[in-house]
Amino acid sequence: MKIKILVIGKFKEVPFKDKINQYLKWINSDYPIELVILKQRKEKELIKVILKHLSSKDIFISLSEEGIQYNSVKFSKFIYASNRNLVFFIAGPNGHPKIIKEKSDQILSLSNFTFPHEMATLILTEQIFRAVSIQKGSKYHRI
Amino acid sequence: MKIKILVIGKFKEVPFKDKINQYLKWINSDYPIELVILKQRKEKELIKVILKHLSSKDIFISLSEEGIQYNSVKFSKFIYASNRNLVFFIAGPNGHPKIIKEKSDQILSLSNFTFPHEMATLILTEQIFRAVSIQKGSKYHRI
Repeated sequence: MKIKILVIGKFKEVPFKDKINQYLKWINSDYPIELVILKQRKEKELIKVILKHLSSKDIFISLSEEGIQYNSVKFSKFIYASNRNLVFFIAGPNGHPKIIKEKSDQILSLSNFTFPHEMATLILTEQIFRAVSIQKGSKYHRI
Repeated sequence: MKIKILVIGKFKEVPFKDKINQYLKWINSDYPIELVILKQRKEKELIKVILKHLSSKDIFISLSEEGIQYNSVKFSKFIYASNRNLVFFIAGPNGHPKIIKEKSDQILSLSNFTFPHEMATLILTEQIFRAVSIQKGSKYHRI
C-alpha cells in the first residue's frame, strides 16, 4: 500500500510542518507516504494537476466537512479494506472543484469543524499513523 | 467572558506547544484565556483539583468523542450563548472520571477520532480563536 496526500495551499507554519513531517516519517517506516503540496491555481488547471496524480486503481478520498466520519478504529479498517493505493485530497479555502468530488471514491470528514488546511493535514497524518498502529496492535492507540 | 482550559498530561511536543501558545495569545487579546496543565493523579485527587478550578457560575464543558459535535459557526454561537465564564476539560488517556462527566454542563466532541491530548488542545484553541473571529466577523473564518 502506498499513500499520497495532495493538499492545496502554502505551508507557512513551522510547528505544523515539523509535526506533520514526524508523522510522515513514522508512517513511512511501514508504508511509502508522500505529501504533495499544490499551488492554488485556476480551477481548470488545478483539476488537471490533481488528475495527473491519480491512477484508476487508486482509492481517491477527498476531505470535506460534509463527508463520512469514522472513529479511529473504523478509519483503520477502511484504510486496510482494500489492498489498493490511497490518494487523499485536502482542498484549500476555496473548497473542492465539483468534478473532484464526483471523481472521489469516498468523501471523508475529519470533524464538523472547519480547519486551516495545515491543521487538516496534521490531523490526517496523525490518524493515518494511528490507523497503522491499530492494525499493528502497537501501544500508540490505547483503549 | 473568561476562558480556562484544563488538560491532563504532559506537554512534551514543542511544535504543539508553539502553535497552542500562538492561538492563546490571539484569543487573549479579546478574552482572558488560561491553559492549566494538570498532572496525572489518582482519580480522587484529580477530581479535587479539577473541582477547585470550577465555580458554580462557570459553564463546564468536558471533551469526549461521545459528546455533541458542533460545526464552527454553531460552536461560536454556543460560546456566546451565555455571558458566563467557560471551563473546558480535556482528559488524559485514562478518560474521564465519572463524576466529572456528571458535573459537566456539556459534553463536547471535536471529532469521532481519538486524538492525543496535545492535539485535542491544539484543535480546541484553534476553534475558540475561530469562534471569536466568527463573532467579530474577521477574515479568519471564510466560507
